[in-house]
This record gives sequence, C-alpha cells and structure tokens, in this order.
Amino acid sequence: MDLWNQLQAYTDSNVYPLHMPGHKRNKKVFPSPLPLQLDITEIHGFDDLHHPQGILKDAMKNAAQLWKADHSFLLVNGSSGGILSAIRACTKRNDQILVARNCHRSVYHGMELCGLQPVFLMPPVVKDFGIAGSISPSIVEKGLLANPNCNVVFLTSPTYEGVVCDIKGVAKVVHKHGGILLVDEAHGAHLGFSKGFPQSAIQCGADIVIQSLHKTLPSPTQTAILHIKGNRVNVKNVQRQLSVFQTSSPSYLLLAAIDSCVRFLQENSASLFDSYEKRLQAFYKKANSLSHLKLFCGENPNVFTQDKGKLFISTRNTNITGVELSSRLRQEFDLEVEMAEKDGVLAMTSICDTDDGLCRLADALAFIDKTLSLGKNSSTGFPATLPKVRCTIDDALSGTPINKTLYGSAGAISADYLWAYPPGIPLIIPGEEISPAFVSAVKNMEQAGITLQAAYAPEGAIQILQK
Amino acid sequence: MDLWNQLQAYTDSNVYPLHMPGHKRNKKVFPSPLPLQLDITEIHGFDDLHHPQGILKDAMKNAAQLWKADHSFLLVNGSSGGILSAIRACTKRNDQILVARNCHRSVYHGMELCGLQPVFLMPPVVKDFGIAGSISPSIVEKGLLANPNCNVVFLTSPTYEGVVCDIKGVAKVVHKHGGILLVDEAHGAHLGFSKGFPQSAIQCGADIVIQSLHKTLPSPTQTAILHIKGNRVNVKNVQRQLSVFQTSSPSYLLLAAIDSCVRFLQENSASLFDSYEKRLQAFYKKANSLSHLKLFCGENPNVFTQDKGKLFISTRNTNITGVELSSRLRQEFDLEVEMAEKDGVLAMTSICDTDDGLCRLADALAFIDKTLSLGKNSSTGFPATLPKVRCTIDDALSGTPINKTLYGSAGAISADYLWAYPPGIPLIIPGEEISPAFVSAVKNMEQAGITLQAAYAPEGAIQILQK
Repeated sequence: MDLWNQLQAYTDSNVYPLHMPGHKRNKKVFPSPLPLQLDITEIHGFDDLHHPQGILKDAMKNAAQLWKADHSFLLVNGSSGGILSAIRACTKRNDQILVARNCHRSVYHGMELCGLQPVFLMPPVVKDFGIAGSISPSIVEKGLLANPNCNVVFLTSPTYEGVVCDIKGVAKVVHKHGGILLVDEAHGAHLGFSKGFPQSAIQCGADIVIQSLHKTLPSPTQTAILHIKGNRVNVKNVQRQLSVFQTSSPSYLLLAAIDSCVRFLQENSASLFDSYEKRLQAFYKKANSLSHLKLFCGENPNVFTQDKGKLFISTRNTNITGVELSSRLRQEFDLEVEMAEKDGVLAMTSICDTDDGLCRLADALAFIDKTLSLGKNSSTGFPATLPKVRCTIDDALSGTPINKTLYGSAGAISADYLWAYPPGIPLIIPGEEISPAFVSAVKNMEQAGITLQAAYAPEGAIQILQK
Repeated sequence: MDLWNQLQAYTDSNVYPLHMPGHKRNKKVFPSPLPLQLDITEIHGFDDLHHPQGILKDAMKNAAQLWKADHSFLLVNGSSGGILSAIRACTKRNDQILVARNCHRSVYHGMELCGLQPVFLMPPVVKDFGIAGSISPSIVEKGLLANPNCNVVFLTSPTYEGVVCDIKGVAKVVHKHGGILLVDEAHGAHLGFSKGFPQSAIQCGADIVIQSLHKTLPSPTQTAILHIKGNRVNVKNVQRQLSVFQTSSPSYLLLAAIDSCVRFLQENSASLFDSYEKRLQAFYKKANSLSHLKLFCGENPNVFTQDKGKLFISTRNTNITGVELSSRLRQEFDLEVEMAEKDGVLAMTSICDTDDGLCRLADALAFIDKTLSLGKNSSTGFPATLPKVRCTIDDALSGTPINKTLYGSAGAISADYLWAYPPGIPLIIPGEEISPAFVSAVKNMEQAGITLQAAYAPEGAIQILQK
C-alpha cells in the first residue's frame, strides 16, 4: 500500500490525535488548500525518517530498486541537505577535496562547515555558448595525480544547462586512485529512464548521487533523494549526517509525494518518456530553422554528452540579451522560463509538459527570431586563472569582515564569493587573494556586461578579511 | 493578498511553465492529493526565501508584527534548521556556550558543527514527576560567573512536558553579563496569544527565539519560524546561516501555509484561544478526580510556570507504565498520544482540538484510573554528576569509533550520546569520559526500568573513541 493510502486509512479511522501537528487534521477550524487531514507526525505505525524500519524503509527500498542503487534516502530539505550530508559523511576536518569550480552553493557551504581545503577542477568553456563544459576523466586524473591526498571527488552533472560528464570514465579513474566519487545530479533525476537520455550517475559507478526530484520529475518542490552504491561509503555515517541536516519533524506530505512519484515512474515511465522524447525531437527540429537565436546542442567540443530536456537558447551575436528575450517570452507569449542571463535563457522541460506547451515555445522563438538582427560578440565570465589560496573558506568567514569596493580591494583576502553570470562560476571565494590582475579582469567583465554578484557584500563591493 | 491567493492567481493565468517543478502543475498527468497546481519555484514575481524583497518579505514582516519581533524568518526545514543557524550565527569555532543539558538533539548537532565547547546547565528534577524542571535566572547567573568567556546562553522553554522558564529573569541576567540569549521555543509557538498561557520568550527579552509552527499551531509539519529582537544579534549573519541549513528550493506550499497560519491567528486567535482555555480548564478539573494517575500541574517546586496545553499524565506509583497506558488509550479508546515513556504519557493539545476529543481523553483516563492499583516508586534518569570532558564533541566524532558494551566501557572516551528516557537528558555525550561510577549509575538505571538509548551504537552498547 502506498504512503498516501496509509495516511488516508489512518485519517478515516476514529482515532483522535492527541499529538502534533497542531492543526489536528481539523480542516473545519483551519481550512487549507493542503490535504492537512493527511499530515501527521512520526506516530505509532508511521516509522521514523531518521531510523526507518517500517513503511519509510519500504518506500526507500522501492526507490533504490527503481534507480538500481544499494541504498536510497528520501530527502525533505532538498538536494542541499543531501549534499551537506554527503560531504560531511565522507570527509574529516582539514581534508583536501577535489571539486568542480562550477558546483552549487551548497557544496561551498559543505566545505565551509567541514573545514575542507578544496582543490578546484575548472570546466572548459563550451564554444559559442560560453557555458561550462564537462569535466573529463583526464582532468580528474590530472587533479588526483597532482594532489595525492585528495580522496573525495565532487562533480556536478548535468549542469544547469544540461552538460553531462563522462561519469563512467571519471568513476573508473577515481576508484583506481582509491577515492570516492560524489555527484550532484540535482538536475538529472530523470536520467536513465529511457534511451533518449544519458544514464544516471548512480548507474555509471558514482558512490553517492544526490538528485532533486522536484526539478525534473513529478514531485513537489523541496523533495530530493540520495543514492549510495557499492561499499566505499559508510552508509550509517551518511544516515547520521542526514539526521543532522534535515529537520527532526519531516513532512509526511512531502514523503508521501516522493513515494507516489517513485510508484508513478515504476508504472508509467516507459510511455511518458516515449512521448517526452518525441516532443523534444520535434522542438529541436523546429529550432534548427532559427537564424539568430541558437539552441544548445550537445554535439560540441568540451561536452561529453547532453541532457536534452534542458533547452538553453543563446542570444549571443544577436541584438537582444537573454533577459530581454525572457521578458518578451513572458509579455508577448505568456511563457515563463527557468532562468535568464546576459547571453541566453534556459527553459526546463519534463515528462509532464504538454505538446501544446513546447509548441508555444517553438513558435514564440521562431517569431522573435525573425525580429532580431546581428549583434556584437560576447565574452565569458570564466576566471582566467584561479586566485591564490591564503586560508580555508571557514577561516576566512570566521574572521572579522569589512566591505570594500571591488576596484579598491587588490591585495586583500576575500571573505566573500563573487559569482559571474554566465556561467555561474565563482571568480573568487573566501580565503583567496584578490590580486591586481584579478581586479582588472573583473573590470573587463563588467564592461562586457557580465553580471557579478557577491554573496555578502552589496553590489559593486566585496567583503574582505580585516588585516 | 495572501500567498495562497497569489499562487492561485498565477495558476489561473495562461502562463505556461518552462521551469521547475517538474510536475509542471499538471495534475492531469500526475494526480496528487497535494495542490500541485499551487507549487511553484522562485520564479519572477515570487521572491526569494534567502534574499526576500517582495511577497515573502511582506509575509515575514506580517509574522514579526504578530509576535512583536523585530525580524521573523519563515523556516521550511523545521526548528532544527533554525537552531543550527542561530548557533552558527552567534558563535565562532572553539567558543564556549552555556547550554541546558536537556536541549534538543539539533542543539548538540549545532555545537558539533561549530566546534563549540559546551558548559552545561542541569535542570532540577520536578518532584513526583521525574521530569526536567526550569532553569532559573540564578542557575544561569552562576554559570556565567563561573565561565566568564561564555557569551551565548541556550535554553529550551517550554520543555516537551510544558515546563516554562523565567525567560524575563534569565534575559536580564544574560544581558547584564553582555551575553546573548537563544531560546528553543519549538514547543511554544502558541504562547503569548492569551492570558491563560505564559508569554513567548520573544516578548520576554530573548534575542533569538525558534518556534515550530506545526507543533502547537495550525501549520503543516516541518514549518517553523525564527524571531530576532533587539540589536545584539547580527541579523545578516542569521539570514546567511539560514541559507546554509535550508534548501535552496523551498516549498511554496509550506511557505504559503505558514503565511496562512499567521493570517488565521491575526483574525481568529482571540476567540479560538478563549474556547481552548475553557476546554483545558474543564479537562484539568476532571483530572483532579483521578486517584492513581496524576496530571502534571505547574504548581510544583522547580517549575517556574507551565504551558497547560501539554498534558503530561504520570503513571508513577501505579501498577502500569506509561507505555502500557498509551497502548490502552489506543486499543480501548482510539486515542493516540504524542509520547509514551516508562513513567507517563504526553498528550498534546491545540486551538484546533474539539471539545469531544478532550472529553474522550478525560473519560478514558477516568475509566482506566479505576482499574489501577498502587505500584512501586520510580527513580529518575537524571545524571548524578556530569562526566569529565576530555575533548570537544566534534573531535570525538571525528575520530575512529568502535562499539563497546556499556558495562565494559569504563575508562574510555565516549564517541556517542546516551540518552535516558525519562527525562530525555543525555547521560553522556561525545568527548566525555566514561568512569566506573558512570557505568554503575547506568546499571542502576537499567534495573529501575529507565530506557537508555545510544545515538549510534546498538542497544546495550556505546560507541567509544579508539585509543
């Protein structure tokens, strides 16, 4: 019986709740669009997320079967909570970690919390699109050879824009060197269900894979899953860390929705992915006729393979920015995209799209494309060389910080992140030195229209460590 | 306009979602008891939880007004996420912190993560009930005088069983010594709304107060709130930590439900708390006639005051245990309580209870009471003296741990927590020394029927640090 039905059976009984939650499943007193009659806490018979032994354990086993993992943990604090847990479970304070520079903020947070010393792997630039390419097995091997103390490698695949790494090759290299491979697959929960998509990292030899269920599968926002495969990872320690970074009062509404998503895929994935692929094929075909706008397609140097569910539409070499394109799509066509940046927009698709939805996007792009003309070329926000590390992220953030204008910060140690959009790679992180060359590179980027955003300081400034 | 209505207006529009979540609000493809048509992500016009500037900022301002706080942050990872954030925002690595030994696991997790050195305050025993009493201003002052480096004090009030501390008095003492007072008020979100309940800690001078909205108010499980008052706390730092410990993809279903709970209280709290108090008064009156079972009532030494919404029914000196009482309530009367332990059960109430619900509990207790007879007296699971600290929690957990039988562990350093129920106070924590006297105390407790539970080792064992 699925979790929704078990919750319904409980609520249909005559049992009166002298326990949390405080709404007492009483929608007469407190009306809500949520099915609060199904919202319970970890009472008798409903298991414990942090020590699953009953229905939640069954739900986790079921999920593990679907993804062919050895263990799968349901997450209610997003992929972020899973990423923090995975990092803490696999490292000790002051450890070095080999990590893709284009990883999600939560990876930086994890390194901060655990006092790690990151050694960064820089992804190559994808030609014509200015986005981050895939980190290859040879980049990883070079990193491991140069840093023999690194036992943990952390990659993001797919990226936001859909670049997928050769995880099979990377896993082979990492395991050859006795290491552990963690993959942030937040954007790839839908991988591995059909031939039109790459396999999931968990099927390619990664040791821990974290997926956002809500991003690309039918599951509510904030739901995610963490998979473990093989015996390189201490499963109990991962479970313990999950109990640190996730609430001790998990929502059964979110848990039941995850369980229901898993069951839905078990029954319907074949036919739904079949229609999904056809829908995408039609879209890519139509996009071939665009003259100015350009749809990102994986047949590109520096890209191993692509998740075609992500539609990255470049506005490079046109007279329009990505932000302007997204406004036109919204205002003229009632289409809301996932993300807009200087050089393009990102549209996210899933098995739950309609044929009409994607047709509307294709038609709108074709219409807008006809109104465009050539524009000037763009530069990228890729850091030329990585700054010198002066102390750990944690140490830099533990000091007394002050705000300084970006242009006047040369010589200081950063106590801030400075992100460049595109491609969403931090130019500098806490603990790194701000050199005069860095300041001029930043000036050039600003002049080229790259958006720079500090994590803590206001616009135009950066937080530095007081001497 | 409230958040639910704004979500509804968005979904009623013709806008097609080329963004997350992957269910695309398409309930035709993926049916769900959840209102997924209202589940969006942080798109244009819907603000950003971690940098609120629009509708989420308004919702937070509204909440701050209701609780008379200066800043209120909506939380989607429970009080746990708020507690971790508050601790990290107010401390630096290796700081000392003055903390109630009977605090929630998340406080221990926070101290671990931040590498803090806890100085524990032991609550006194509440006579006849064996539960933890309130930590008085003088206990706190003694602690601050003995540990002048402690700048942060962390208390839990109310406790699970409803014991409320004199937060006004404690805040005065803490501020006199230049410190900051953090209060885990997870069990007291309903305080301060009517005269029949104590004031909330945020109205009594605490600097940061974390409340679980779902525990005692009409809000779904996993929702919580963090209040800040005054200028002793760095608000920006708290906000930054919240973005570390909470997902970057927060659920708008949970956020809208919090907003709706706040608005509901603004409009209805007076009448609902009025009926609630009457319902409780009737219950306490009936419970007066119990001969064997005993309802916890705040007029008790070592209790400052009481949250009467928590009904702790003691089975001490009867021939039944709390666990047996909860089984009888479930099996014979269809009543599910919040918690059962050796010496009692805890029933949680709220403004959403029905008159009938509480009558059923009162009648059931009266019926069972008549079937009981005198039993033998109980001992408590209070640690006699606190063990010697040998290293920080973090250091103990970073080492290589091994499992050892409890009885054979004397002389070792604990790499585990050992909790005693009742009263839910850890007898030992990681980094503390296991003395021969500790082992005999543990033996005595086990013989007296106190439940002992290690956090990591299996039953009867404890994880220790390998030498």
